[in-house]
Amino acid sequence: MTTKKTVPSDIDIAQAASMMTITDIAAGVGLTDEDIEMYGQYKAKIKFDTIDRLKTAKDGKLILVTSINPTPAGEGKSTVTVGLADALKASGKNSMVALREPSLGPVMGVKGGATGGGYAQVLPMEDINLHFTGDIHAITTANNALSAFIDNHIHQGNKLEIDPRRILWKRVMDMNDRALRQIVVGLGGPARGIPREDGFDITVASEIMAVLCLSSSLKDMKARLSNIVIAYTYEKEPVTVADLDVQGALALLLKDALKPNIVQTLEHTPALIHGGPFANIAHGCNSVLATKTALKLADYVVTESGFGADLGAEKFLNIKTRTTGKHPDAVVIVATIRALKMHGGKPKNELTDEDAKALKLGLANLQKHLETIHQFGLPAVVAINKFHTDTDAEIKILEEFCQNQDVPFSLTEVWEKGGEGGRDLAARVIEAIEGPADFSYLYPLDLPVKEKINSIVQKVYGGSEAVFSKKAEAQIKQYEEYGWDSLPVCMAKTQYSLSDDPSLYGRPEGFKVSIREVVPKLGAGFLVALTGDVMTMPGLPKNPAAQKMDVTDDGKGVGLF
Amino acid sequence: MTTKKTVPSDIDIAQAASMMTITDIAAGVGLTDEDIEMYGQYKAKIKFDTIDRLKTAKDGKLILVTSINPTPAGEGKSTVTVGLADALKASGKNSMVALREPSLGPVMGVKGGATGGGYAQVLPMEDINLHFTGDIHAITTANNALSAFIDNHIHQGNKLEIDPRRILWKRVMDMNDRALRQIVVGLGGPARGIPREDGFDITVASEIMAVLCLSSSLKDMKARLSNIVIAYTYEKEPVTVADLDVQGALALLLKDALKPNIVQTLEHTPALIHGGPFANIAHGCNSVLATKTALKLADYVVTESGFGADLGAEKFLNIKTRTTGKHPDAVVIVATIRALKMHGGKPKNELTDEDAKALKLGLANLQKHLETIHQFGLPAVVAINKFHTDTDAEIKILEEFCQNQDVPFSLTEVWEKGGEGGRDLAARVIEAIEGPADFSYLYPLDLPVKEKINSIVQKVYGGSEAVFSKKAEAQIKQYEEYGWDSLPVCMAKTQYSLSDDPSLYGRPEGFKVSIREVVPKLGAGFLVALTGDVMTMPGLPKNPAAQKMDVTDDGKGVGLF
Repeated sequence: MTTKKTVPSDIDIAQAASMMTITDIAAGVGLTDEDIEMYGQYKAKIKFDTIDRLKTAKDGKLILVTSINPTPAGEGKSTVTVGLADALKASGKNSMVALREPSLGPVMGVKGGATGGGYAQVLPMEDINLHFTGDIHAITTANNALSAFIDNHIHQGNKLEIDPRRILWKRVMDMNDRALRQIVVGLGGPARGIPREDGFDITVASEIMAVLCLSSSLKDMKARLSNIVIAYTYEKEPVTVADLDVQGALALLLKDALKPNIVQTLEHTPALIHGGPFANIAHGCNSVLATKTALKLADYVVTESGFGADLGAEKFLNIKTRTTGKHPDAVVIVATIRALKMHGGKPKNELTDEDAKALKLGLANLQKHLETIHQFGLPAVVAINKFHTDTDAEIKILEEFCQNQDVPFSLTEVWEKGGEGGRDLAARVIEAIEGPADFSYLYPLDLPVKEKINSIVQKVYGGSEAVFSKKAEAQIKQYEEYGWDSLPVCMAKTQYSLSDDPSLYGRPEGFKVSIREVVPKLGAGFLVALTGDVMTMPGLPKNPAAQKMDVTDDGKGVGLF
Repeated sequence: MTTKKTVPSDIDIAQAASMMTITDIAAGVGLTDEDIEMYGQYKAKIKFDTIDRLKTAKDGKLILVTSINPTPAGEGKSTVTVGLADALKASGKNSMVALREPSLGPVMGVKGGATGGGYAQVLPMEDINLHFTGDIHAITTANNALSAFIDNHIHQGNKLEIDPRRILWKRVMDMNDRALRQIVVGLGGPARGIPREDGFDITVASEIMAVLCLSSSLKDMKARLSNIVIAYTYEKEPVTVADLDVQGALALLLKDALKPNIVQTLEHTPALIHGGPFANIAHGCNSVLATKTALKLADYVVTESGFGADLGAEKFLNIKTRTTGKHPDAVVIVATIRALKMHGGKPKNELTDEDAKALKLGLANLQKHLETIHQFGLPAVVAINKFHTDTDAEIKILEEFCQNQDVPFSLTEVWEKGGEGGRDLAARVIEAIEGPADFSYLYPLDLPVKEKINSIVQKVYGGSEAVFSKKAEAQIKQYEEYGWDSLPVCMAKTQYSLSDDPSLYGRPEGFKVSIREVVPKLGAGFLVALTGDVMTMPGLPKNPAAQKMDVTDDGKGVGLF
């Protein structure tokens, strides 16, 4: 049984690890020194020429890791994603993992780090959690350059007749900073610009992050940047980046950020860590270019989507898959017994007590997500991240549930044992991949916007219908006139519940989902449907993780976890 | 005679250049692969271990390049700095150049680039002008993390009793963005923080940039960060970073940024490009760590200070030299005949006309700067950046002037010819170094603050006296009580004139300098004396350089210059 005590802290494991040089890691998947640009000894970017050259290679198998609706009990999706790739490697397979880049804001705030955990981590963890190869900084810069160009355009005479009250484009910062949520800029007289309301989002919520993650090439990225709707004129006509003619400068700022980053896991499995769009306001998965490149280099690629399957996997399948042209060959749904008991109504401070009843009730949440994956025509595997308080009786209930559902099931111990602890999961996943699959999108793109939203609400959330505010109704009508209605929909909803009410755990039924607003993201290539309030700039807690952080006199990080 | 037509654009020269790998460049000064961390093939950082190891090595000679008061006609100080290092190398010397990192804001705005010009450039110019190795992004992040910690502290109960009206610490962005000069943050109710006035400076104006540039080690940097005064309490007591206990997190964010970057010139001279504090609000020269490291690696190190000798060289000598413990062995003052004619009253659109009278009048500006350098006890060399419109008669006037002043003089053609065009300058500089030098600081640190300021006004600017506002008087008195009065003074003054009136070209006399305010920068370790308005956040022009920028489909930059 897994006991937390036997495992050192994440940063201790990471700093004690012996890494291979990134040239050796790259060589393991057939990349030479000419194919990569090194960032220190343990990080590199893959060149565009190499990506072009690989285009004709055969694709490997794609494994998507998702989870039940997240709870404060923790599920360990990233840990399982890393551990599964290591387990495939330990089983003799040529495997890779493709992950998102952590955002510095949450690292400084609550999280302290986001590179897996225990013996299933990616390295170098300090670098990846801090500035990494500068991708997110480049996105911040491009985003804010665009804001500066917009305000400068208005200040210099406003030839495009941009309505300062109708600017959609916000500034961003890779920070948790609530004081920047709502601000007024341009105060202090004519030398200081035009006063107007503005606000900062966290960088990962920037449409430029979504653009970078969905672009298939520099050329495609420039085209997407051109399409971004930044504002409306006084006549309510949309104004785009192309109207300002700065797509070239933005693409120049992003040219290196678009190249996928290669690093390694603790067990030297190659890892592509690239892009990390918010999973609520955007689609929440790593970049198309990294996933496609990994598929060319490895026989098995393990990747993850954001939050639970209702949000992350749905968007992965309906949005990202439409861009990559490659659907997953199998989907792993991660849960813990603790979290399932919370979905069954067990309070957080009682999760160490055995509770068959709560577990059985909570399994309804897992069941809905399994149904969703099956609706897409894909095989699903349940991975239970084993915890030392799980009892034999509880594990038996889970096994019986999965047998009844006719779904493969595996207890994983990757957190404590690394790849070795995921050997069984790897075997189940390979079996699932070899079985039949018949993927289809949940909705065709030519379905009216409201029907697309309703199909997600009904088929994925299990709700009765979507209810549209007057504002949303008017917006959808307007977007139909602009010809924007054939885009996929990116849902912005709480991650904690299948419904739009975060307090409804388990599997709520018969609920309606309120669509407050629909926002055009023409660069990313989707319409965002906002349900309730969506937080796009987090705040810091009373005692930020940063207060425990430090660096030794010889440059070693302290307090990341 | 130099003709502009024969020389391609900067970016064309840079992109056509064949670079050596940075490992080979490093090997040329005795650094192995173990001493550096590569950022791609052509950029690297020097490790702290290596810097430690080099501590006992003998210092090379230090050459400081400064200029007359800058004019719109252009002087080419960076170009001469790079060209002189190349010329020294071409003369068989082991030379290096130590420069500042360009700020992205001006690159996007007017400048388009800041890596020298013509055949005297540092490479890779696109990278250096864009994100380089991420140092400035790290500074932006650390600066804004501190702002978020301050606002969060107040929001969470304000245990330190910080007065929101007396917060000195501003947010920053590496952007020209006038709309952020004066803003109100924290609007929108209790979930969005405490409303207060704030503003953004450009990142290079951040005290953290000055701290990074003046730190001699990670440990020293952390101590300096702790000392930064961020605000006053309601009782008007200073609040420092140490009071918030986040110096460790800030140092962690800056640990890689503190390592000097090594690149190369067009002629493969090793170049350390590291740090770039604003030359008005801060001391305006590259990092102490880079300069000290270069001195250990090369026999001749060429470096530059910001703006003219009245601002940049004065601060280099009174502030940076106190930290490095190493004064320059010679000072080069750069001018152009065009710029000297502007100082003599010639309008900008008539500079191609020969004008002996304007030139003779304008030489008074050069003369004052020569006197200043000689006051510090250092040998000076005049370098005239040759321009194709310079006439023989004008050159003769210059030669005679320098003979009369008993100052070595050289016409340089490094812009057109690279190092070869600076061979004569290199010879003059070596001669000057071999002559006598008797360096002394302009003022002792224990002089009262007002007297320190007066000694700069009188000895360096040639003014009659400093006049202090009531506010400045009160601040100085307060700082004496806090025990902050033994710090050097960092003057914030217009670069365009020896006086504090930017319209006074040439060598004004009898003027007074108004000290509006004195600001404590205890992390950097100086008091900033503000004369008149100092712009700490630039704006964009009507047609930003960014509009001409682009990137080709295969990743080549366009429109940088």
